[in-house]
Amino acid sequence: MKKVGVAILGLGVVGGGTYKILTEHRELYKKAHGLDIEVESVLEIRKERALALGIEEGKIASNIAEICSNPEVDIVIEVMGGVEPAKTFVLAALNAGKSVVTSNKELFCKYNHELEKVAKKNNCGLFFEASCVGGVPVIRALLDNLQGNKITSMMGIINGTTNYILTKMSEANGSVSYEEVLKEAQALGYAELDPTADVEGYDASYKLSILSSLAFHTKIPFSKVHREGITSVSAEDIIYGKQLGFVLKLLAIGKNTDRGIEVRVHPTYVKSSHPLASVNDSYNAVYITGDAVEDVMLYGRGAGALPTGSAIVGDVIYCAKHNNYQYSTFNNTEDADPSTKFIDNFRSAYYLRLNVVDKAGVLAKLSAVFARYGISVAKMVQEAEKENGDVPLIFITHETKENSIKKAIADINASGDIAKLESVIRVVG
Amino acid sequence: MKKVGVAILGLGVVGGGTYKILTEHRELYKKAHGLDIEVESVLEIRKERALALGIEEGKIASNIAEICSNPEVDIVIEVMGGVEPAKTFVLAALNAGKSVVTSNKELFCKYNHELEKVAKKNNCGLFFEASCVGGVPVIRALLDNLQGNKITSMMGIINGTTNYILTKMSEANGSVSYEEVLKEAQALGYAELDPTADVEGYDASYKLSILSSLAFHTKIPFSKVHREGITSVSAEDIIYGKQLGFVLKLLAIGKNTDRGIEVRVHPTYVKSSHPLASVNDSYNAVYITGDAVEDVMLYGRGAGALPTGSAIVGDVIYCAKHNNYQYSTFNNTEDADPSTKFIDNFRSAYYLRLNVVDKAGVLAKLSAVFARYGISVAKMVQEAEKENGDVPLIFITHETKENSIKKAIADINASGDIAKLESVIRVVG
Repeated sequence: MKKVGVAILGLGVVGGGTYKILTEHRELYKKAHGLDIEVESVLEIRKERALALGIEEGKIASNIAEICSNPEVDIVIEVMGGVEPAKTFVLAALNAGKSVVTSNKELFCKYNHELEKVAKKNNCGLFFEASCVGGVPVIRALLDNLQGNKITSMMGIINGTTNYILTKMSEANGSVSYEEVLKEAQALGYAELDPTADVEGYDASYKLSILSSLAFHTKIPFSKVHREGITSVSAEDIIYGKQLGFVLKLLAIGKNTDRGIEVRVHPTYVKSSHPLASVNDSYNAVYITGDAVEDVMLYGRGAGALPTGSAIVGDVIYCAKHNNYQYSTFNNTEDADPSTKFIDNFRSAYYLRLNVVDKAGVLAKLSAVFARYGISVAKMVQEAEKENGDVPLIFITHETKENSIKKAIADINASGDIAKLESVIRVVG
Repeated sequence: MKKVGVAILGLGVVGGGTYKILTEHRELYKKAHGLDIEVESVLEIRKERALALGIEEGKIASNIAEICSNPEVDIVIEVMGGVEPAKTFVLAALNAGKSVVTSNKELFCKYNHELEKVAKKNNCGLFFEASCVGGVPVIRALLDNLQGNKITSMMGIINGTTNYILTKMSEANGSVSYEEVLKEAQALGYAELDPTADVEGYDASYKLSILSSLAFHTKIPFSKVHREGITSVSAEDIIYGKQLGFVLKLLAIGKNTDRGIEVRVHPTYVKSSHPLASVNDSYNAVYITGDAVEDVMLYGRGAGALPTGSAIVGDVIYCAKHNNYQYSTFNNTEDADPSTKFIDNFRSAYYLRLNVVDKAGVLAKLSAVFARYGISVAKMVQEAEKENGDVPLIFITHETKENSIKKAIADINASGDIAKLESVIRVVG
């Protein structure tokens, strides 16, 4: 029986869940793997959290140095979140020769180059399956299973909070606003009191940076991710989308094309027949396309105490069983390989919703604007005049360049006498 | 740059696909992994297959001994299928110190205990991701990612041929029979000329044996899998199922309950809102439930030259990169751990379709039979009398024991004067 000592840094939601899994399944891991995994130490400012979990006082460390110098600790689990003090603590653990398992997407996204260098130097493992999409086994799939492929595209619903909000707005059929659903989600604990990281797309962008770096074999810095959140999503667009056969999702999209790499997070209409369209509530999924495997989708709980704990404990067992350490494959650089080309002017289909100003001339004038920038229209719907006098006019374009749409919108806005632009949403599927 | 020599045994569909991926992506693997992977040798009776792929004559081996004694070969890929001569060849390769990557579900299901013993003795790797569900990364997810969990249930659509047939029957809305769709599938190459292994559920049972052994940490012998194929599926039941909100699938189900382990492959109605219900054509998916991760679904192409080749090449790269070897975790026994209890008398909901004989007394008499065995009915539908005078009567039961249903059916069949049983289909979701 191999004895494995672990320490947990942070006993919040995920830390508590991880502790629970490790202690409840201790016999299972002995039987299945010959591993006796014991939580030897925890670090948590709010000591009452540790006591509430039944952790004895002697195991509650007062500082990171105590954990680093504890010879019983082999693996340090970092589930504090945020850059500091997590980064300092992880570096201290690695320098003390402990392997590290982390769920910290912001830390890994921003500093993986530095952390992995130190891990290698000390011959330690650095595992990060829990940093992206909770219990869904996407990191190891990218690191190992799919390496036979040139991965061309990745599309994911990788933030639970925003997917919960958009699902509820969709279920309510336009009868509730974003603000109302956000409040409800906060009351239920699905959204933070400061929801910025989720609703503005930061969380999804950290994850996309990590996932696309693995898929495309070059560091994709967070700064290269085009990021738009869901705060300006309107109930109206959810309804109109439904009528057109679309479901509105916050998608994280990474593509590796002949023209270069594009990485972007934004609200997106997904065709209702696409497997991603039925990923609801706080479920997450990543849809990956490779030149050999064709399409693969990995689906499950992207967050939560136990699902994220599942990923952490999977890494702990892997680390304890194997003497080899996997590292991400993007060569520990802080920035992308200089040969990497990033595309801002990506191609997409678009949904444009306008409010008609000049009823008589609108179609001719808009057609002229679209023609000017080579935009071709796949579908047009003019809705009935509303009580307030608005006349909504909706276009779905064929695939076109982002810059062409931007120019067309600028022209429409500048003229003022054709129609008022209400919303622009990219369309996939 | 690490040089890695591979040999491919068998250049059928999967062998050819694997060769293609390895040769086309040679530069990618150099750049991404520092691995120069070269196909050093192939073994294929039909030499013209090798020549058609552009393999030079000097690399075509005449027998397995040539490959075993070739010092340039590090890894042997076995994609011949069937037990012999694959088993003899794999053992020879392992005994010659070569690691083996196999896609052979029948071989691995039946002889993994023997193969893994020899692999360990020779300090070689034995990799089998491609043996189950093609390009879908389910083996490594079970071996590594999900090990933090007690896995309680696994439900999979893990045979592409039968899923293709059932999807086409469903799309045709009852207008084509099983036999007609099978013929079409054979013409298109989706089904073998002798379709037995697929349509009788053998292929799915081999895979379920492997997957459930990994999930439940004990060898689940093929002989313990309750197996029913799709040959007696009727177009009528597909229609009636649709009306009731069900999709008919060949499901492989593994459960680890307090009462014991159940493993079974049979046609099953899946509620149309369940994620498995929308897995169509030759797509496959495995839906896994663990006590920490909750639900995870892995979806993709379960067969085909390139998707299966993707899994093989993923294993080749893993094997070449790491010095550790993973083995299945069921302890190299030929049979299940003696403490393992298997349940035949499992619980399920059931769909029963009968043809009414005695119109006046049927409901009272059937109610008496159901009451006798504690079967409670969740839904009953009596269809209009058909042109041929048949009156279909459909029951959906609440969850009940398999043996209770069997006894009730025996009583109905024995009496003869109540109704004639047309079909029985288990229901999940």
